[in-house]
Amino acid sequence: MDDFSKLCIHTFTNKPWTLDQCIENYAKEGVKGISIWRNVLEGQDLNEVKVKLKEVNIEVVSLVRGGFFPSILKEERIAAIEDNKKLLDQAAILEAPLIVLVCGADGRQSLETSREQIFEGISELLPLAEQTGVKLAIEPLHPMYAGDKSAINTLKQANDMVSKLDSPFVGVAIDVYHLWWDPSLQTEIKRCGEMNKIFAFHICDWRVPTLDFLTDRGLMGDGCIPIKSIRSWVEEAGFAGYNEVEIFSDTYWAMDQQVYLKKIKEAYLKHS
Amino acid sequence: MDDFSKLCIHTFTNKPWTLDQCIENYAKEGVKGISIWRNVLEGQDLNEVKVKLKEVNIEVVSLVRGGFFPSILKEERIAAIEDNKKLLDQAAILEAPLIVLVCGADGRQSLETSREQIFEGISELLPLAEQTGVKLAIEPLHPMYAGDKSAINTLKQANDMVSKLDSPFVGVAIDVYHLWWDPSLQTEIKRCGEMNKIFAFHICDWRVPTLDFLTDRGLMGDGCIPIKSIRSWVEEAGFAGYNEVEIFSDTYWAMDQQVYLKKIKEAYLKHS
Repeated sequence: MDDFSKLCIHTFTNKPWTLDQCIENYAKEGVKGISIWRNVLEGQDLNEVKVKLKEVNIEVVSLVRGGFFPSILKEERIAAIEDNKKLLDQAAILEAPLIVLVCGADGRQSLETSREQIFEGISELLPLAEQTGVKLAIEPLHPMYAGDKSAINTLKQANDMVSKLDSPFVGVAIDVYHLWWDPSLQTEIKRCGEMNKIFAFHICDWRVPTLDFLTDRGLMGDGCIPIKSIRSWVEEAGFAGYNEVEIFSDTYWAMDQQVYLKKIKEAYLKHS
Repeated sequence: MDDFSKLCIHTFTNKPWTLDQCIENYAKEGVKGISIWRNVLEGQDLNEVKVKLKEVNIEVVSLVRGGFFPSILKEERIAAIEDNKKLLDQAAILEAPLIVLVCGADGRQSLETSREQIFEGISELLPLAEQTGVKLAIEPLHPMYAGDKSAINTLKQANDMVSKLDSPFVGVAIDVYHLWWDPSLQTEIKRCGEMNKIFAFHICDWRVPTLDFLTDRGLMGDGCIPIKSIRSWVEEAGFAGYNEVEIFSDTYWAMDQQVYLKKIKEAYLKHS
């Protein structure tokens, strides 16, 4: 039987669609989970969004994305924390259980300094996370983003950071795109599971060759990531949540999005 | 005093130049080492090249590049080994002490399988390496190349492979571009030094943002790599060889190459 009960899609995967179009089409196609990106929430009444989602029985899996803590400028670090607090409030209204953190990096300072600022930034969010009941997931990003997007580039680093923060409100988002190449991945997934810290699991594929740093991700099956193996490691480590399809792709964004959504469902069954 | 005694430049850094232009201009500017890419050797009499280099007192630091061992097709794996043998013979004629290996990967098979084929490929080259006296340097490549260019993506993996191959003819080429982001870099440089396996050291910079997977490298000082720190680790680990400037850059290739060569020398003194 075709099981879509654990299929979640990120709104950015269907970037040409508005939030309403995402909700309508996901409902029609039996997609049970949605991860909502901030851009589609602009100008929306969040309470109305919540009602719409409940009407069609779609669960909000996460709000994407917070983070970007490091900066050589103190005022930018303060602004980032304020921005993340706003996001926590939005998540609380939407009843989103989780915010995904792209932790940030500033190439004008060392990775070590950026990591300290990430630790400090997340620490400052913890009281509000606890108060709102919204969790935070550190998403380690591929080393090709270490210069500007995240100073946390392996699951080991994310596990270390989560362990040091030591809060039930902080865990990890595991994305196959960022981590597939890492020879310590299986070991660190096990460790993350033992800490009960696997908060999210994202899937897509790595195209060979990949032509763009941001918008050339593949649909599952298009590339070389052993998605089924990684999913099995994550599930063996105790994760029972959604498989979130997160694909940035100029190629797929140029397609008819309804046709693309059917392709996503096929690829989900066949290659993940 | 301006010390260029350990400055080596890769011919591909000045891609618009022929080998003769590289030799002539490096000699004029007091560059003491050259790493020669295969493309500029096409159609050349290698014995004549060797004589020209001796006349201007420029040392061949390495021949670039061999490797590309993995393939799902056996005939391609055999062809790769034959090609590497040819390269060893060329290196012997040029009296190049070293061949840099970009080990290869095939996205149609697992990284583990590709690594086994890399091990087998290098093993098959060892008798000829010993016979010709030419060494082989495994260059771990950035994880963004794991899909197609190398299944060896960290210095730890290179150290492990070198340790397993256990030959005085196999070591490592450390390139800051590929490895700067790795939190275990300092530890693994120390380990590599303790094994006496640091065979080469390549420098350039990581631009923020980087716009192309291949041809947007920065000149030292253009980006966020802590080149001086990494160089100090390499030297503390016992390396006393050349600092090899290896930059692929559409931007710099579009410049007057003589002006660019002066910029390279300035950046070398100031930022490495």
